[in-house]
Amino acid sequence: MSERSVAQNAQLALLLEVTGTPKPGNVDREREYDDLRFEHFMAGAVGVRSGLDRAAAGDPIGPAFETAVDGMAGQSAGNTQFGALLVLTPLAAAASDGRLSPSGVDAVVRETTVDDAAAFYRSFEHVDVAVDDPPDGLEPLDVRRGSDAIPELRARELTLFDVMAESADVDGVAAEWVSGFERVFEASEMLLDGSGPVADRASDVFIELLADEPDTFIVTRQNCDTAAEVQRRAQAVLDGEEDATALAEEFVERDINPGTTADLVAGALFVALERGLDV
Amino acid sequence: MSERSVAQNAQLALLLEVTGTPKPGNVDREREYDDLRFEHFMAGAVGVRSGLDRAAAGDPIGPAFETAVDGMAGQSAGNTQFGALLVLTPLAAAASDGRLSPSGVDAVVRETTVDDAAAFYRSFEHVDVAVDDPPDGLEPLDVRRGSDAIPELRARELTLFDVMAESADVDGVAAEWVSGFERVFEASEMLLDGSGPVADRASDVFIELLADEPDTFIVTRQNCDTAAEVQRRAQAVLDGEEDATALAEEFVERDINPGTTADLVAGALFVALERGLDV
Repeated sequence: MSERSVAQNAQLALLLEVTGTPKPGNVDREREYDDLRFEHFMAGAVGVRSGLDRAAAGDPIGPAFETAVDGMAGQSAGNTQFGALLVLTPLAAAASDGRLSPSGVDAVVRETTVDDAAAFYRSFEHVDVAVDDPPDGLEPLDVRRGSDAIPELRARELTLFDVMAESADVDGVAAEWVSGFERVFEASEMLLDGSGPVADRASDVFIELLADEPDTFIVTRQNCDTAAEVQRRAQAVLDGEEDATALAEEFVERDINPGTTADLVAGALFVALERGLDV
Repeated sequence: MSERSVAQNAQLALLLEVTGTPKPGNVDREREYDDLRFEHFMAGAVGVRSGLDRAAAGDPIGPAFETAVDGMAGQSAGNTQFGALLVLTPLAAAASDGRLSPSGVDAVVRETTVDDAAAFYRSFEHVDVAVDDPPDGLEPLDVRRGSDAIPELRARELTLFDVMAESADVDGVAAEWVSGFERVFEASEMLLDGSGPVADRASDVFIELLADEPDTFIVTRQNCDTAAEVQRRAQAVLDGEEDATALAEEFVERDINPGTTADLVAGALFVALERGLDV
């Protein structure tokens, strides 16, 4: 049998992420939203492959990411894996370059350019992504402006790393970009140290991460109080005081979707697969 | 957004097939076997892509199929989608050639050669597949002999189409090969005529097909009586006399896995996707 390529491991990470159940609030094998279903994640994962191939081939991160997002958008539910791809693209680039480590991927993201930032902004034209209003003074760089913001990016000479650094305190994926993907690598160790079905380990790691820090996608779509509640209740699951499946039902009912935490799990699954996690 | 390629639609068909639930006896989103899990189908579907790319690029059917099987085998559960690939490979070849119709795919399979048959036999060396003993006189062509059977294939000048024709009366996939993929195309119409989530339509079509004819994989692994019981009880679901979910639980418990019917659903999903089924 053939070994999976870097891009195949990244694609498989997306599929295994959504396979894990329960992941309270996320789409998973047993829970979905009427307008965001399990099948949309399947189609999204099929579509991302050429972008991941580009990242693995050493193409610049920004255009590779934009290609992946464009492919992901080829299903009717809109954004399924935007954040996960923002995690996976630099990890795939680092892996294909033999430097899949915190310092290696840190070097990859610090090497990004203004052109990468421009491609990142263009990618928002392929799909609607829930984002916060930009901080005061950064309105010209609102990602929702898409390519209209590119002249401003160029004027300020902002690389994709710079763009991520601007939102690292309000976006859990951006926070990974500026920290050597610290939580992703930690979570990958949990996956590798675990036993049993990979899908169950993905669920366990998801709840660990959720209890660890507030999910910034919930902060964006709901508010800080809700994110704090989710964090507290994930801890209650770990403490045996709440049932994960019941919590999953409740969060889906309340439309509380910890999407950023899912993005990190996808990244952790990729790292673990590259390091020998057996499926 | 980009349109999916033929190979991407074939890969998505595999993912949507296993996403449909309930499909009594099959692995699906909510049911799996300890040694054959949902995650293995994810990894299998990731692995098949280069074989499907070959089929879509006009490479011969046999080597394309062998490549797909080799990629599929890159997970620990062994055979996940062998039969489905035997359905999808000629369909993908026909689709990329602008002849995705019963007569078009019939022409594709009739054009197969002895080399295609040899590659098919080699593919059994990549993975264990449950098959019956060959009929009397055909022992030298037992597929379990793998490439050892190739000299005999060449001596008898058997093409892959000829090999399929030999087992068309005992194998539901081979029966499709010699009938212009009749049941696959009929099932694709049901998918296109349906409404609601694609995963639900896949489940509905699976039960229709199961009630329609005995599943030959059950005949192989169990016996004709069991296959007849399964067919009868699928009809009872259609008649509202049995509950599909309860039946799914029972069949998994009894290790009754109608794998051939699942293979046909994968083919039907592919045809429907090529003809505009929206996900």
